[in-house]
Amino acid sequence: MGKSFSLPRGTADILPSDITAWRYLESSARQFFSVYNYKEIRTPNFEETELFARSMGQSSDVVQKQILSLRSQKADAAEDSGLALRPEGTASVVRSYIQNNVDRKESLSKYFYIGPMFRGERPQKGRLRQFHQMGVEAIGPDSASPYLDAEVIALAVNLLKGLGLKGFTLKINTLGSKEDKEAFSKKLREDLKPHLAKLSDESKQRYERNVFRILDSKSKEDKAIVKNLKLDHSYLSKESLDYYTKVKENLTALGVAFEESVDLVRGLDYYTHTVFEICDSSLGAQDALGAGGRYGTLVAQLGGSDNVEAIGFALGMERILLALGKVDIKQSALDTFVIAMDDAAVSYAFHVLNKLRASNISADMHFKGGSAKSQMRIANKSGARFTVIIGAQEVQNKTVTLKDMDSGEQEELALQEAISKIKS
Amino acid sequence: MGKSFSLPRGTADILPSDITAWRYLESSARQFFSVYNYKEIRTPNFEETELFARSMGQSSDVVQKQILSLRSQKADAAEDSGLALRPEGTASVVRSYIQNNVDRKESLSKYFYIGPMFRGERPQKGRLRQFHQMGVEAIGPDSASPYLDAEVIALAVNLLKGLGLKGFTLKINTLGSKEDKEAFSKKLREDLKPHLAKLSDESKQRYERNVFRILDSKSKEDKAIVKNLKLDHSYLSKESLDYYTKVKENLTALGVAFEESVDLVRGLDYYTHTVFEICDSSLGAQDALGAGGRYGTLVAQLGGSDNVEAIGFALGMERILLALGKVDIKQSALDTFVIAMDDAAVSYAFHVLNKLRASNISADMHFKGGSAKSQMRIANKSGARFTVIIGAQEVQNKTVTLKDMDSGEQEELALQEAISKIKS
Repeated sequence: MGKSFSLPRGTADILPSDITAWRYLESSARQFFSVYNYKEIRTPNFEETELFARSMGQSSDVVQKQILSLRSQKADAAEDSGLALRPEGTASVVRSYIQNNVDRKESLSKYFYIGPMFRGERPQKGRLRQFHQMGVEAIGPDSASPYLDAEVIALAVNLLKGLGLKGFTLKINTLGSKEDKEAFSKKLREDLKPHLAKLSDESKQRYERNVFRILDSKSKEDKAIVKNLKLDHSYLSKESLDYYTKVKENLTALGVAFEESVDLVRGLDYYTHTVFEICDSSLGAQDALGAGGRYGTLVAQLGGSDNVEAIGFALGMERILLALGKVDIKQSALDTFVIAMDDAAVSYAFHVLNKLRASNISADMHFKGGSAKSQMRIANKSGARFTVIIGAQEVQNKTVTLKDMDSGEQEELALQEAISKIKS
Repeated sequence: MGKSFSLPRGTADILPSDITAWRYLESSARQFFSVYNYKEIRTPNFEETELFARSMGQSSDVVQKQILSLRSQKADAAEDSGLALRPEGTASVVRSYIQNNVDRKESLSKYFYIGPMFRGERPQKGRLRQFHQMGVEAIGPDSASPYLDAEVIALAVNLLKGLGLKGFTLKINTLGSKEDKEAFSKKLREDLKPHLAKLSDESKQRYERNVFRILDSKSKEDKAIVKNLKLDHSYLSKESLDYYTKVKENLTALGVAFEESVDLVRGLDYYTHTVFEICDSSLGAQDALGAGGRYGTLVAQLGGSDNVEAIGFALGMERILLALGKVDIKQSALDTFVIAMDDAAVSYAFHVLNKLRASNISADMHFKGGSAKSQMRIANKSGARFTVIIGAQEVQNKTVTLKDMDSGEQEELALQEAISKIKS
């Protein structure tokens, strides 16, 4: 016996017993996305590292610390350097949109994705190295509409409600236009300047690099300083305030409850106008189910047209499943288990098994034979609705004995009759 | 406008226009796997590199040349070395089986997987760096049964037939037991010895390392030498021949056509007894749709019990889609497109849109307004079955005008009536 192997740290197997919950999540999401006319796209699991550096910012935590790069066996081969596993889904979808010149074909494109994402971070509860997200991106020259902001937010909220989640809260804010955001960052630096010495080391570094991230700081001292800043929307232009007002009106019209949170900023450069976050306090320290917002400058940043905006969100699938707890969904059970009473019956039982399967009835048997009792135990464990019993008599008569596992009733039938009965 | 980005070489986007074919493939496969009582498992996309070296063999081409390793930003951190993207699915499923001690819970476990695999090979038609496979693994102390071999092969064949493929051929062979295989490799070396000087350089290297791979050589000279060897089953024990005979009988009983191919060996160490390959000549040089066989020694090789065998196959999803050509499946179209005749109608139209969606009717609208004509063009492009038209009159009356896009008929209705009509 050789060395045995373990799952890499920060990853999980999704075992057959977990699959029902994952499929429930995925099929519910696909249904909602389709009702809102979002179409599925699947991009590769890796891209040029530079794509993520450009979209998330070279100085962002993810790019600085969490990117998992690829290296082929020929580590010196230039062609293999510069690729990395995707840490999130947005950059790849926008890359595909730009590469395929989709803006020349339609004025608004609505995508959704479901899939694995990868970060080389220290594993902890709710933080994995391979995790899964589902999200949407609405991209196009016609995407700048406060109705679309409300649609995207409502889609996230209605999907979570549809899944059965109740305790989550939606926080929204606006960052205003690119120009407003610059004014805000200037004002923020001025307001923070007197407190600079008291900020945490991390926040000191962020003061020049990305001052908005200081608002997300987990440090107690930083939080106290931020609280005293009394942030408001005074830096916003009238147009930006009007846009935000319309988004809120549309959300209210859709019956979507929200809290306004003036210190919700999202750490990435490309956000403008609407940003939002959905949290569930039952999750503990890592309480975000998902987040999103409008990307005013991302498409241009990645080489696309200046007039193409986008808006989207991503939801963490492991987090949703944690918040849902045990999903009460019926495991799909086997239709039929075939039992051969003795070795001489196995060959005919195998024939019957395959006739059942050919009729689209899920069926199995224990090829190793063994006592009828031990086979019946396996049949019980499989959760099969019916057993089909084959003994000398059934081989002789070319029949089967069909047993209803709920009622315990059994009768000898022609195979075709048994198939009809199982199907009804 | 910044630099624009491209797909990494050897990868593909699956765009919304491709999704229908992929979903058809996946949902058909899930249906077949379920009918045969195989349960879904999802393992992480990366594992310890050593797992693949141990399963496929340190000297195998894949491990020597094609493994894509991971490297975190802290490239020197010991904990991040030694991980690699999976080049195939079997090793991970067996790792999970062993790690979870499944052999103590059930005597036979039947898994299937569908997902991406990764190889750092030179991209060419039919060979990608991220490609997708679906496969099954039946593992357990009770897995050594010629009925199971036939079941696994029949499942692969019936799935491909069910998808609509017709031109493929199934080749089978047996390698016999571990002892038979050693006898075979000894005989093969003896038979090849006189021709050693004439073999290709690659085959010369394989002569000691893995002599079976010489039988797969693409070199003309090697092929001619192999053909003259007149391989046969003389090295097989009686037990192994009997087992193989039963597998063939069971396949015949299931109506599965096969060709016997005595030079089909599969290059990996862990195969014993039954091996098979499914090819479709329409695919050109890379004509394998998939392959599989019995793994007599893999579980022990990876640290599990000596008495646990396994059998499985993997099918290449890109190859299947290539062989299927244009799959003729109806794209699922939008149910309804909502048109606002003027700006004053947008807000009420938005309300109607969301009532439709809340009734589980897939619906969309163009939030930017524009002329009724341009909106009707977008509605046509969306393939919507109905349009719902909202003008001043409908806003006034709190009604909608429902237009059937096939018949061209339209009528003014209460929203609830329109919803019922769309649903029926």
